[in-house]
Amino acid sequence: MAQVAIVMGSTSDWPAMQKTTVLLDELGVTYEKHIISAHRMPQHLQVFGQQAQDKGLKAIIAGAGGAAHLPGMLAANTLVPVIGVPMQSHALNGIDSLLSIVQMPAGIPVATVAIGEAGAKNAALLAAQIIALQDNTILEALTTFRARQTQQSVDSEDDLI
Amino acid sequence: MAQVAIVMGSTSDWPAMQKTTVLLDELGVTYEKHIISAHRMPQHLQVFGQQAQDKGLKAIIAGAGGAAHLPGMLAANTLVPVIGVPMQSHALNGIDSLLSIVQMPAGIPVATVAIGEAGAKNAALLAAQIIALQDNTILEALTTFRARQTQQSVDSEDDLI
Amino acid sequence: MAQVAIVMGSTSDWPAMQKTTVLLDELGVTYEKHIISAHRMPQHLQVFGQQAQDKGLKAIIAGAGGAAHLPGMLAANTLVPVIGVPMQSHALNGIDSLLSIVQMPAGIPVATVAIGEAGAKNAALLAAQIIALQDNTILEALTTFRARQTQQSVDSEDDLI
Amino acid sequence: MAQVAIVMGSTSDWPAMQKTTVLLDELGVTYEKHIISAHRMPQHLQVFGQQAQDKGLKAIIAGAGGAAHLPGMLAANTLVPVIGVPMQSHALNGIDSLLSIVQMPAGIPVATVAIGEAGAKNAALLAAQIIALQDNTILEALTTFRARQTQQSVDSEDDLI
Amino acid sequence: MAQVAIVMGSTSDWPAMQKTTVLLDELGVTYEKHIISAHRMPQHLQVFGQQAQDKGLKAIIAGAGGAAHLPGMLAANTLVPVIGVPMQSHALNGIDSLLSIVQMPAGIPVATVAIGEAGAKNAALLAAQIIALQDNTILEALTTFRARQTQQSVDSEDDLI
Amino acid sequence: MAQVAIVMGSTSDWPAMQKTTVLLDELGVTYEKHIISAHRMPQHLQVFGQQAQDKGLKAIIAGAGGAAHLPGMLAANTLVPVIGVPMQSHALNGIDSLLSIVQMPAGIPVATVAIGEAGAKNAALLAAQIIALQDNTILEALTTFRARQTQQSVDSEDDLI
Amino acid sequence: MAQVAIVMGSTSDWPAMQKTTVLLDELGVTYEKHIISAHRMPQHLQVFGQQAQDKGLKAIIAGAGGAAHLPGMLAANTLVPVIGVPMQSHALNGIDSLLSIVQMPAGIPVATVAIGEAGAKNAALLAAQIIALQDNTILEALTTFRARQTQQSVDSEDDLI
Amino acid sequence: MAQVAIVMGSTSDWPAMQKTTVLLDELGVTYEKHIISAHRMPQHLQVFGQQAQDKGLKAIIAGAGGAAHLPGMLAANTLVPVIGVPMQSHALNGIDSLLSIVQMPAGIPVATVAIGEAGAKNAALLAAQIIALQDNTILEALTTFRARQTQQSVDSEDDLI
Repeated sequence: MAQVAIVMGSTSDWPAMQKTTVLLDELGVTYEKHIISAHRMPQHLQVFGQQAQDKGLKAIIAGAGGAAHLPGMLAANTLVPVIGVPMQSHALNGIDSLLSIVQMPAGIPVATVAIGEAGAKNAALLAAQIIALQDNTILEALTTFRARQTQQSVDSEDDLI
Repeated sequence: MAQVAIVMGSTSDWPAMQKTTVLLDELGVTYEKHIISAHRMPQHLQVFGQQAQDKGLKAIIAGAGGAAHLPGMLAANTLVPVIGVPMQSHALNGIDSLLSIVQMPAGIPVATVAIGEAGAKNAALLAAQIIALQDNTILEALTTFRARQTQQSVDSEDDLI
Repeated sequence: MAQVAIVMGSTSDWPAMQKTTVLLDELGVTYEKHIISAHRMPQHLQVFGQQAQDKGLKAIIAGAGGAAHLPGMLAANTLVPVIGVPMQSHALNGIDSLLSIVQMPAGIPVATVAIGEAGAKNAALLAAQIIALQDNTILEALTTFRARQTQQSVDSEDDLI
Repeated sequence: MAQVAIVMGSTSDWPAMQKTTVLLDELGVTYEKHIISAHRMPQHLQVFGQQAQDKGLKAIIAGAGGAAHLPGMLAANTLVPVIGVPMQSHALNGIDSLLSIVQMPAGIPVATVAIGEAGAKNAALLAAQIIALQDNTILEALTTFRARQTQQSVDSEDDLI
Repeated sequence: MAQVAIVMGSTSDWPAMQKTTVLLDELGVTYEKHIISAHRMPQHLQVFGQQAQDKGLKAIIAGAGGAAHLPGMLAANTLVPVIGVPMQSHALNGIDSLLSIVQMPAGIPVATVAIGEAGAKNAALLAAQIIALQDNTILEALTTFRARQTQQSVDSEDDLI
Repeated sequence: MAQVAIVMGSTSDWPAMQKTTVLLDELGVTYEKHIISAHRMPQHLQVFGQQAQDKGLKAIIAGAGGAAHLPGMLAANTLVPVIGVPMQSHALNGIDSLLSIVQMPAGIPVATVAIGEAGAKNAALLAAQIIALQDNTILEALTTFRARQTQQSVDSEDDLI
Repeated sequence: MAQVAIVMGSTSDWPAMQKTTVLLDELGVTYEKHIISAHRMPQHLQVFGQQAQDKGLKAIIAGAGGAAHLPGMLAANTLVPVIGVPMQSHALNGIDSLLSIVQMPAGIPVATVAIGEAGAKNAALLAAQIIALQDNTILEALTTFRARQTQQSVDSEDDLI
Repeated sequence: MAQVAIVMGSTSDWPAMQKTTVLLDELGVTYEKHIISAHRMPQHLQVFGQQAQDKGLKAIIAGAGGAAHLPGMLAANTLVPVIGVPMQSHALNGIDSLLSIVQMPAGIPVATVAIGEAGAKNAALLAAQIIALQDNTILEALTTFRARQTQQSVDSEDDLI
């Protein structure tokens, strides 16, 4: 049973969202992945949102670009925390995606992360941090991940030549 | 039977959207008006969208602010033309509303008009122009409206003192 | 007799606007296409606008970039619905085109769609939806188009590998 | 023992962040509240971050404006999920706050919500949704909250007069 | 016979554009003033543009806001230099007006000045500088104006208390 | 004796500003061209500005990028009309150049044109239009230029295939 | 003999820049203050810049708004460090001031601080930090200032009621 | 003993920040260089900041991108002047980096320079100007640098062909 669902509006979002899966794999978080277009598949979206809690999902990670309605509409249909990843859009570099995801009205929150691949990676880490509140194995994996990440930054100083 | 439906996410949008009703009244276009919050009432939204065509609506005018998902999600659920009116939001003055409405992905169009009251008025005129393609009474009303509007501009020159 | 006119300010807009013609062809909507530069051909623009209604056009799709005056000035000269497509401009990525088209003052509406190719495609769909209000063949073509579009999104999930 | 910590850089953030406490009270989530200025109290920030996990906090809600470093620096010092609330800043209306909070580099996530009061409220809801993953009482409170919120939107249609 | 024409789209632009007249009066430049809405009076605009040269105008100062098409469309219809003044618009503070005026495509120039009253004043000065190239009285008036302006700045240092 | 001076801050502006010279050549306007960096050559700038009127210049065209101070500082030192061309800057695409040039305070105007090559070309046309107010040869050249430009747009419709 | 010069383009900048003087007084830094408009007083600016080093100034704090050329042009005329304070401008809230000051080309630096009063205060602190590198009295004053500032933030937590 | 420390968040900032070292070498300013990620190495950051004064550093140059917290957090931990260099970020071209660095709240200043390489170079020059206040050798090096820079600009006019 997956702990996290990764959803995105189109396969064009996959190169960025694949970074999410790499980190979840590394941390030992289980996940399922889906194409759910808010605009082309509104009924699927609604059904998916309504079933998320019963499936036992701990977080939904939703990547979307432009007038990015997927994360907010999923959040409107479930109480499972939704993490929104703004895709770097073609014309406006993702500022449209960011504002469409983060500027939710009071009542329905979306946990928004950075535009593009940095956000896709951090969505995985945020989901893992949420799960780690009740799962010590994931907490230890995160602790190890952070320590290694710090050490890599420290070591990289040798490359300033 | 209403020709146009005016929907908005919250009563805070009403002062702007009321301008839409004033113009529709003036042009003789019939309408119904509704609160449908994309985020607080997602099921209502879907039902409304799916029934729009059968109700004989010729246009849906949807006002929304911030992460404005209402127009796009309505458009995803119907083939009736949807006109989106970006509300002037509190922090970002409506640039978030505008981008959330206009930057729709290929496949589902929203006819977007200007931010705030100017857009609310023009949404009424655009709906009337669509209806006028098959309704000569509305076409004449629009023709009269434009002529008067032009004359008012011409006459206003006398106020430059 | 064409149902839709596609106009643009310069041949540099053609690669984007050609997407409009592809979709209109697919939906069975007839169209004519023109170069009308608002700034280099202001008289032509005015004549074209004034004759649009008599030609029986159901919609005018106007693509323009930068200080994009073509859609608004066409709209000022006709009661036929005008759909504005903001071109992705060189320096500012189309945010100038978008604001120049969408921020029309009260009195003359332009139905604005997304920047660039997504908007060019959606302009065709929006025009078809307007025509479909009185043309069942186009309505059926749109219904088929949407169903196929949904199915393609559903099927694309298999590509997430 | 508090489930959530609310921190902010200055008392000028309190009018917005107080909305967070109102919602947490309504949902039955316990919290503590603190002034921790990232720039004026960097040592306090670090100590607070490092102790957050041992204190059993399930989420940290951090409000900050301008060059808003508080949420990101807290996140750098703990594995407890950090929710960032961009304050509406004086000159730039919070777009600086938003970008300073949401554009975190890969490795350290901050769950960002909307600018200002809407975000302050949604931070409370997001924290509650995270806690509800392992606390059925909070889950029920959220379910009740959403149902009432939906009903209020439905009922508000009567005010469109 | 007026040396300069001041035109604007609506009387709401008059408070700013009146500053233009004050400076022209001070410099001894003759002018006429008009309401010409690009969108509500497109025929008037075209006629006015085409007659500008024959009327002996040395400059046209055009104030407009939002999707500000007036300066560019006047410029498209005449070889008299057109100075565009972006009005401070309601929602977007004039950034829409500025981009709609300044981002003209190659072929038709508009001399754009600052948003709002500063621009309205500078439009008068720019027109006077153009006229001064062939009119020594205006040149002397400008020289006097600048000297006084400099002295006023110098003297104002006494107010720093 | 040159009618127009073209100045720019660095040779990196030359590819864009060379477009200015091509159009001036075509219209028969004489010009000189200079490197004057506002920041690296402030004394040269001041001397150049102060001598511009005595040299009989009818216009100064100044291209500059980023914190673009050249056009405004030239304008502060002369009554010859200054036309500012915002260069397309590396990081911000010229929006910094545009605002640095156009947002001049009341008292010293700069006639600003579009960002990049379109602006560079229009600067030449604007200068020619200013000169044409007292030079019939240039006026005729401009009239011919515009007629050919219009015809080219008309003819280009054949390329929409 | 003043250690710091505070200059600004107009008395309208004084309410913000007065905050600079309050902090300099508190820290025991001596200063002189001047109106020097880059555009209205370009010769004064140049003379002031060229004499700054000989006067023994350790820093120049320059406040300016809109197309803010004062800090950069002062920096072009002296090797004394120049600190630029972007004023909150009328239409664009200081984003124009900020970009006009900070986006200096390579070769002439301006130390830019935040828009408005926060920047005006920080300019004083930055100047004091520069002077403190060779002046232990100022260093001690700064150390005391920071300690008190931290304590005030700590104490303010009691106001969260 | 180094006069200046150059710090950056990651080796991806090195291509830009290397320009800083080239100029410091040319001016004879000694420096050390470090990787200190604000988010991955928060303890290192704090220790480094607290030791900067005792190490005798005259300036810290900090390059950072996105939600750029490094310069501000260093400044919060030391009285040594901190110069912030906004890196040109992937999605938003550095506007996020700029606002995250420059919009510091009152109390802790960061001397911000331009986005990217121009800023990296100017950071070196600004640090040298600060050191030159008490070091005549560096002052002479700067004087020579500026004179050569001016001459190079003057000479480059020959390349306008």
